[in-house]
Amino acid sequence: MINKLIEKIQKTQAPIVVGLDPMLGYVPGHIQEKAYAEYGETLEGAAEAIWQFNKEIVDKTYDLIPAVKPQIAMYEQFGIEGMKAYKKTVDYCREKGLVVIGDVKRGDIGSTSAAYAVGHLGKVQVGNKTYAGFDEDFATVNPYLGSDGVKPFIEVCKEEKKGLFILVKTSNPSSGEFQDQLIGGKPLYELVGEKVAEWGEDHCGDTYSYIGAVVGATYPEQGKALRKVMPKSFILVPGYGAQGGKGKDLVHFFNEDGLGAIVNSSRGIIAAYRQEAYAKYGEENFGDASRAAVEDMIADIRGALEAR
Amino acid sequence: MINKLIEKIQKTQAPIVVGLDPMLGYVPGHIQEKAYAEYGETLEGAAEAIWQFNKEIVDKTYDLIPAVKPQIAMYEQFGIEGMKAYKKTVDYCREKGLVVIGDVKRGDIGSTSAAYAVGHLGKVQVGNKTYAGFDEDFATVNPYLGSDGVKPFIEVCKEEKKGLFILVKTSNPSSGEFQDQLIGGKPLYELVGEKVAEWGEDHCGDTYSYIGAVVGATYPEQGKALRKVMPKSFILVPGYGAQGGKGKDLVHFFNEDGLGAIVNSSRGIIAAYRQEAYAKYGEENFGDASRAAVEDMIADIRGALEAR
Repeated sequence: MINKLIEKIQKTQAPIVVGLDPMLGYVPGHIQEKAYAEYGETLEGAAEAIWQFNKEIVDKTYDLIPAVKPQIAMYEQFGIEGMKAYKKTVDYCREKGLVVIGDVKRGDIGSTSAAYAVGHLGKVQVGNKTYAGFDEDFATVNPYLGSDGVKPFIEVCKEEKKGLFILVKTSNPSSGEFQDQLIGGKPLYELVGEKVAEWGEDHCGDTYSYIGAVVGATYPEQGKALRKVMPKSFILVPGYGAQGGKGKDLVHFFNEDGLGAIVNSSRGIIAAYRQEAYAKYGEENFGDASRAAVEDMIADIRGALEAR
Repeated sequence: MINKLIEKIQKTQAPIVVGLDPMLGYVPGHIQEKAYAEYGETLEGAAEAIWQFNKEIVDKTYDLIPAVKPQIAMYEQFGIEGMKAYKKTVDYCREKGLVVIGDVKRGDIGSTSAAYAVGHLGKVQVGNKTYAGFDEDFATVNPYLGSDGVKPFIEVCKEEKKGLFILVKTSNPSSGEFQDQLIGGKPLYELVGEKVAEWGEDHCGDTYSYIGAVVGATYPEQGKALRKVMPKSFILVPGYGAQGGKGKDLVHFFNEDGLGAIVNSSRGIIAAYRQEAYAKYGEENFGDASRAAVEDMIADIRGALEAR
């Protein structure tokens, strides 16, 4: 799957990922009204609204981008109906040829991590049959529990040719509270980064490892350092746009080959129609606003990479 | 909810929680066969099997125990159908008067943590209505992202009178890889424990805070130290029984009032019928074996607390 991701990045010339994190507040009124007319103001109605919203954004952007990253929390908040919309979104994006990064941030002790890995990336055995539960291509994983919480994910990835992005340095303001603490002179995130590099060594595609890392766009200096710590790991970079990151801040997340990072924008793309820059499209044409925002983001990052 | 938990612990004299982590391999053949006869060897069939398994164990133990802890990964591995079985289990246990600790180990950046909090402990707004998605009483939370990943959970708990158990020192063998690293002479888990105490200070029930911690039974020395760091926090203690913890190792997780900890056993209770000690019940009567295992666990912990 890492090979497919790289192939798609090279084909689109767009090392970006669209974060499908549909808060109901982002969904235009006419989509919500139609869904509620059919299902009522219910969890089913909300799930239908976010699914229709996602579908339009995917339809308007899939030819420009290599990957999407649905954030499962935004679906999970609507209970079972929300989870159905998540699964529908994953399946639809894969049908469209997109690489799907499930932003699930799971992580537990061994046998429990194995169950998460099976549910999101692998297949579960039922009697003599096997089934894929959610079937994303990549998943994000929380490293707090250490190697035996991560390895069951790696095993499933190896078997299924899928991949991981492990949280190393997250984009939020208080990420430093624990992640920046110095351990023998090195911040914790660097220690985690070293582990990611180690886990990744034996799990490589053609040029990069399928064990990647998450490093926030909001911490470019740390990104620069971590790039060197994990030379063969792809870095998933959240925090572009709405959270403050810009193309020029992100060049050091990439290797000299122009690869090695994939930059995520969620709100900046999916709620583009609410920004002044894209207001001209109007709420009705929110998908076109998202397409324009994707084009601008690609140009920003491409420009920054060419200028370095 | 922390008051209800304490009240139920005092009434049952059982500071324990039954972990409802139903691997299909634990579910007796006759339960699986019946479910597959009705739904086929499908995800629906597997979900029915684990639900019937859970129901029998709850029916046979609910009068002895204050709480259950369903581990969501074991349901999530079966996709949407598994999530339905999770929700059914949560609802049934609450109907039976049990406190339900959703072992979900969620955690993300601010707005995303808020979505998880709403989905598991709170209510989500849809138009003019509100709905509870999963509606557990407590949830476990991963602290790696720091305060702004945890606070949205705390806010929902405050509003809904629910609670958290935050991962401090987990029970697995490699938990020390990051959690034991020394930061200014103190292990990371102690730093997290101090934060749990701080977060808990302003969020108290009558005697204890509703912001608790997870500390593994397999690390009794660390439990003793953390008990002092977080005097007002309830400690959820996994790792009893199958993972190696015994009652006498656990006395220091409790305060002098006999409260402050709740010990979880999963496999040791729900798959008791497969242990030599309870083999006499037979596979058919797996619920009775679980009840006997609960009684033995309560006696072990009570005895250890009385002997100290």
